[in-house]
Amino acid sequence: MMSGAGKDFMERTKFRYLERSDQATGHPQPPLQSVGKGDLPVLELPDPAKITVKGTDLRKAIERRTSIRSYSREPLSLEELSYLLWCTQGVKEVAGGAATFRTVPSAGARHALETYILANNVSGLENGLYHFLAIGHRLEKVSDDPQIAARIKAACLDQGFVVTSAATFIWSAVAYRMKWRYGERGYRYMHLDAGHVCQNLYLSAEAIDCGVCAIAAFQDDEINSVLGIDGEEEFVIYVATVGKK
Amino acid sequence: MMSGAGKDFMERTKFRYLERSDQATGHPQPPLQSVGKGDLPVLELPDPAKITVKGTDLRKAIERRTSIRSYSREPLSLEELSYLLWCTQGVKEVAGGAATFRTVPSAGARHALETYILANNVSGLENGLYHFLAIGHRLEKVSDDPQIAARIKAACLDQGFVVTSAATFIWSAVAYRMKWRYGERGYRYMHLDAGHVCQNLYLSAEAIDCGVCAIAAFQDDEINSVLGIDGEEEFVIYVATVGKK
Repeated sequence: MMSGAGKDFMERTKFRYLERSDQATGHPQPPLQSVGKGDLPVLELPDPAKITVKGTDLRKAIERRTSIRSYSREPLSLEELSYLLWCTQGVKEVAGGAATFRTVPSAGARHALETYILANNVSGLENGLYHFLAIGHRLEKVSDDPQIAARIKAACLDQGFVVTSAATFIWSAVAYRMKWRYGERGYRYMHLDAGHVCQNLYLSAEAIDCGVCAIAAFQDDEINSVLGIDGEEEFVIYVATVGKK
Repeated sequence: MMSGAGKDFMERTKFRYLERSDQATGHPQPPLQSVGKGDLPVLELPDPAKITVKGTDLRKAIERRTSIRSYSREPLSLEELSYLLWCTQGVKEVAGGAATFRTVPSAGARHALETYILANNVSGLENGLYHFLAIGHRLEKVSDDPQIAARIKAACLDQGFVVTSAATFIWSAVAYRMKWRYGERGYRYMHLDAGHVCQNLYLSAEAIDCGVCAIAAFQDDEINSVLGIDGEEEFVIYVATVGKK
């Protein structure tokens, strides 16, 4: 019986209950990003600074945005994927090993999120599951299991557009990266941050004639298991599909 | 001792624990927006369709965005405030009393958020606290207590830019509007949604030479009390200041 879970959380994460953070009590800072998701190849992504998109007016992008679940068979190019990763999690500056400044805001610049890409139809990229290395702007392959797409679809309540998309973004939160400074209240912030990121995906997709659909309904244990993450220290927080309109 | 609050929440709101929703069991749908925050005047806002902003390229807005805490003394115009409200919560369509479609996505188009505006320096608008009626695009005055700004600043840990901003956006969540369909997991979605909205504020502000700073650290009980909301059925979820650079 899980009733009251949300109310309890909001109560227990009130600012007035915050204790001295691990940061304040001298615990070392966790790494700025996760690395080494496997021993599969790491790919350089096209440099965002050299990628030109036709562009779109901001207000038009906001007004046109709607959730789109069906996509043409036209692939996403690797440049377009690189551009979307840049707009959603791109690292503009690494400040002395202590923080990253990205194309999205994050509470205290903690940036607890990681991005996984299920590539279904990206030209120049083998289908499979990848992990984005935001610092360095590269992709590391996490899995080349031919069943990976089907398994992720199953974890997403069997919604077909998870695999008919050109790419599906899966964002996880590495909890301690936020908790180190903000304690339990940081769980609110991770969700707020995931909202910032997903909104940028929606909008930046408009500039390359793509549509997006966010997915927050997924079987947590199953999707975490497919990604090879433990579901506590790191857990999937949000998912979004993208493809050509 | 609140340790484990976040982990407990993530566990208890796993999809597999979802019970049949109030929607599925025939409970009536709650109203699409809150109305009647007081008996103070209601103001029509300038029609967003008639407001021209100089505009900005989407990608440039994303790349330029940074959190800005100090503002010039130049006021925000009422047109600019109307534009920002449109970009963050504007209602594009009311679908038969059952849903609204807005300039931001929301899980199941539930749109559980309400927007309050602390007007500090908006030309044509008396300083005070307002509530945005997204359906109808109007503002209702909630309080003309001359101490309201100081009280909100105090609740936001006395951060001065809450009152040196031209306007401070305060978003609340009306929990049942989301829970009616999604149960306790809906508390995740309210936070994701608040992230979408705040990101649109950051970006749309770029088109009118404004800067934004999001605030997620506030004394919950105090800020809810100042807004006259109970903190359980409706609670403040996110805050952001905006003003001319």
